[in-house]
Amino acid sequence: MLDATKSRRPVARTKIIEVRDGHRRRRSDKLAGEEPMEIRFGGPADEPGPVAVTMRTPGHDFELAVGFLFTEGLLDPSSLTKVSYCDSLDADQNYNVVTVRTSAPFDAKVLKRNFYTTSSCGICGKASLDDVEVRCAPMDGGPETTLDVVAGLPESLRSAQRVFDATGGLHAAALFTADGTLVAMREDVGRHNAVDKVIGHALLSGAPDFGRQLMMVSGRASFEIVQKAAVAGVPVLCAVSAPSSLAVSAAERLGLTLIGFLREQGCNVYAHPERVVDL
Amino acid sequence: MLDATKSRRPVARTKIIEVRDGHRRRRSDKLAGEEPMEIRFGGPADEPGPVAVTMRTPGHDFELAVGFLFTEGLLDPSSLTKVSYCDSLDADQNYNVVTVRTSAPFDAKVLKRNFYTTSSCGICGKASLDDVEVRCAPMDGGPETTLDVVAGLPESLRSAQRVFDATGGLHAAALFTADGTLVAMREDVGRHNAVDKVIGHALLSGAPDFGRQLMMVSGRASFEIVQKAAVAGVPVLCAVSAPSSLAVSAAERLGLTLIGFLREQGCNVYAHPERVVDL
Repeated sequence: MLDATKSRRPVARTKIIEVRDGHRRRRSDKLAGEEPMEIRFGGPADEPGPVAVTMRTPGHDFELAVGFLFTEGLLDPSSLTKVSYCDSLDADQNYNVVTVRTSAPFDAKVLKRNFYTTSSCGICGKASLDDVEVRCAPMDGGPETTLDVVAGLPESLRSAQRVFDATGGLHAAALFTADGTLVAMREDVGRHNAVDKVIGHALLSGAPDFGRQLMMVSGRASFEIVQKAAVAGVPVLCAVSAPSSLAVSAAERLGLTLIGFLREQGCNVYAHPERVVDL
Repeated sequence: MLDATKSRRPVARTKIIEVRDGHRRRRSDKLAGEEPMEIRFGGPADEPGPVAVTMRTPGHDFELAVGFLFTEGLLDPSSLTKVSYCDSLDADQNYNVVTVRTSAPFDAKVLKRNFYTTSSCGICGKASLDDVEVRCAPMDGGPETTLDVVAGLPESLRSAQRVFDATGGLHAAALFTADGTLVAMREDVGRHNAVDKVIGHALLSGAPDFGRQLMMVSGRASFEIVQKAAVAGVPVLCAVSAPSSLAVSAAERLGLTLIGFLREQGCNVYAHPERVVDL
């Protein structure tokens, strides 16, 4: 009913049969775009090589590439020199390959470890939790916030989503200042991509302020989301839904404040409540 | 608040601060278990090598390993000889490594392609869509079902989940006969893992009947879920929430009936409605 491989857009259109209360009608519908994007990475002297392929919602692709490489511990943002679409493929496919170049030499060993460990949206357990700890010293300090500010985040996130999301099929991630002001919001079919995009946005804007901000995600908090927040240095992570066991133990160890089931009527605080000063 | 890396269980316990309507209390809470599992794979003459690491909810690990290798096109189930936990690591970690052996020689090229393409929970676009089509001839025929049967699947899935899911944090996947009888249900923090587990369960039970069954998943339908259903040969896929654009175009091309937003009051049919005979 559609050829989404050519859509290039965050939202694609298709024709569906809608059934409601026994009645059927044919109508047009909107779908969240999903297309593969290959991320290539290289130092000044290297031919950029493929690091990962992610299924993402087209749009904000440079942010995604930069955010991914940063939160996976591959990229030092201060050495970033160029981000570009591929120009050697069919015109249709160019925008599905993003190349990131850096002025620092590139350590293939790091790539090998990371490529392997991200092979199924995760990272290899305890050994890799140690790796994450090496990459990001456990956080202390960071923003002080209040229950009132935290309680307001879901509505801010939803308001921002309402503008963009007509499909019912996207995860969202947003950064907020400690007083609850929305800094940026990004959406994607992949939960981890939404986080990488919003972090990449801050990096490419040139003025990231991760250490004084809060992050909120629309769904659950997995280990991978905690890892990405911790590597970026965002000290407070809030989720609309449940965290996993490994998300909680990682947040504990990495010094991250983890709040789940954050909805109108309240929330659950799973780790490091000390940043919520009136708790 | 907990050390989930030693939990070995689908559900872990932790202590939280619960905030509801301004009141705070400390209480115990249940979390969906999340731990890394490495899948190793080898033929009769090979030393089994690592194929993937997935963050999964412990439990039904052999089903997950077999289902994953099968839906990724690596394993011919008729050549399966042995599935076992590792016995050479610390006792604590043994159960996080599952080795699958097969009587067929193992083609490392297939591994390389698959390892790469699954590197971020996806597969590389159009080229790989062609691969999937080679691995599984586009389906025709298959079960005939009705709107009534389809409408009953969400409640069957929820009933089965109620028994297992105390955490609010798990994805579910289930197989049903064409008349709506539940065959098996599995849950996992990873959407794709729940699908692999329920397919692996059918393979290990020795009597898979994929070609005459329906699959239902609790969340959204991504390309990867469509791919796994198609490789297994399940002709009807239903999801509680939205499909992505690539899920719809893959279902179209692979001959899969795709139904989304399946809830009490109705559903949307995105591809191949012909198997729902009264539509």
